[in-house]
Amino acid sequence: VDLARLSLNTKTVPTLTLEEVIESCQRLGIRTVAPWRDTVAPMGAARAGAMLADAGLGLSSLCRGGMFTATSASGRRKAVEDNLRAIDEAADLGAPVLVLVCGPVVDRDVQGSAGLVEDGIAAVLQHAHDSGVRLGIEPLHPMMAADRSVITRVADAALLVKRLGAPEFLGVVVDAYHVWWDLELERSLAAVTGGGIIGFHVSDWGSPLTGGLTSGRAMMGDGFIDLPSLSAGVERAGYAGSVEVEVLSDLWWDRPPQQVLATVIERFIAHV
Amino acid sequence: VDLARLSLNTKTVPTLTLEEVIESCQRLGIRTVAPWRDTVAPMGAARAGAMLADAGLGLSSLCRGGMFTATSASGRRKAVEDNLRAIDEAADLGAPVLVLVCGPVVDRDVQGSAGLVEDGIAAVLQHAHDSGVRLGIEPLHPMMAADRSVITRVADAALLVKRLGAPEFLGVVVDAYHVWWDLELERSLAAVTGGGIIGFHVSDWGSPLTGGLTSGRAMMGDGFIDLPSLSAGVERAGYAGSVEVEVLSDLWWDRPPQQVLATVIERFIAHV
Repeated sequence: VDLARLSLNTKTVPTLTLEEVIESCQRLGIRTVAPWRDTVAPMGAARAGAMLADAGLGLSSLCRGGMFTATSASGRRKAVEDNLRAIDEAADLGAPVLVLVCGPVVDRDVQGSAGLVEDGIAAVLQHAHDSGVRLGIEPLHPMMAADRSVITRVADAALLVKRLGAPEFLGVVVDAYHVWWDLELERSLAAVTGGGIIGFHVSDWGSPLTGGLTSGRAMMGDGFIDLPSLSAGVERAGYAGSVEVEVLSDLWWDRPPQQVLATVIERFIAHV
Repeated sequence: VDLARLSLNTKTVPTLTLEEVIESCQRLGIRTVAPWRDTVAPMGAARAGAMLADAGLGLSSLCRGGMFTATSASGRRKAVEDNLRAIDEAADLGAPVLVLVCGPVVDRDVQGSAGLVEDGIAAVLQHAHDSGVRLGIEPLHPMMAADRSVITRVADAALLVKRLGAPEFLGVVVDAYHVWWDLELERSLAAVTGGGIIGFHVSDWGSPLTGGLTSGRAMMGDGFIDLPSLSAGVERAGYAGSVEVEVLSDLWWDRPPQQVLATVIERFIAHV
């Protein structure tokens, strides 16, 4: 993995405006970014896309859609509408992938909640296809099942892609922090063939966590994850795209953003 | 699940001495306990076993052995020696099962660490057999992979039992807090046949957690776990033994132990 593949997920430096992200990337030689919707909201997706294109920056993804598991029919309809908007925003931005955080377990029903996720994705697939945006199912760490995602393993995400039968505009996003612990990971990655992996996020797992469950990630090299092996596994599965650095961390968010970015680059070269 | 199946894991009320645990159980009609080694250390396992027998209390397990994944050969030898002692303690106590927390990921190598676990269990199996103590592999939540257990899913534990080829004195301990999130759980439980499940622990998963990752459990009924369905799945897999209440929780540990025990009984009846 060389530096040309680094994509900066904007949540790594959440206090920077899009203008500041662009300026920093140009100065540091980062060529690709992955914005969150709140980063592009101030100027709108189309204007943000034009700013990025003018600056010569590419996009790896837009974070995020999903959250399909509302308990009421109206809640699920609202979720679908929000995802249709997110797909439009990704298209306006020029982001090839919309990352999906699928939604938490509801009604104490793990299987049923996964079914709601499947229904939700099915309801927006055609619009993704028509918009030229691929949907990336990101399994989240099982400790987030109650709050964010009932889809917790690469194997779960791959099964969902298979069931929905639309591999050309639906795939799996692999995030090291979320999936590193899985004894079946290597086998699950090997089973995702034919370009089924459409995103790869890196950070590290430290002990103790650097903050809350979501914002507890460590910088690459500071933790327990064998990132080179994971990168190799993702590559063997056919993925050759951007590697997003997404360090959501109360610890790193308290530090000066330019120091964080310098560390990101140093650690990306040394540890990914 | 009726109250006769309730076993009190002593870590639920860690400030009580064994004498106080015995007195409380007799008063409340709890017939079975699962002590931790530190609870029986003051008087020794043989004396503790006699005290429990005199009080008419049964045992479901002793917590805990394991921690096989030391990085040095001498560290691994020490772990094996400690497990041989723990097996002796279980035998002296009259506990039918020694629960194993297998040990964390070391050297950033998930697969290799699982191999160390397998080697460690293999080294103590014969002594367990000779002592009449069954070893219970307890998969822990993936958020504990870096600190406590590389074995994180029922499927992982079942595979380990199969590989070690000693089903008559080795089995799987299912703890709701650790495994509830797994979309493959039902299938994994159904695959553990022939008495392969030898323990079942209950608490609940709340959000936010009630404390740290290990001590963050909720009381049954306060969280996201469908305990009746999980109980049914465990029973379908052939398990009809004790149901251990193991609420490791900074929140509940701060409350008066007798209040905790009254709540345990009330919630066990209502929610398990």
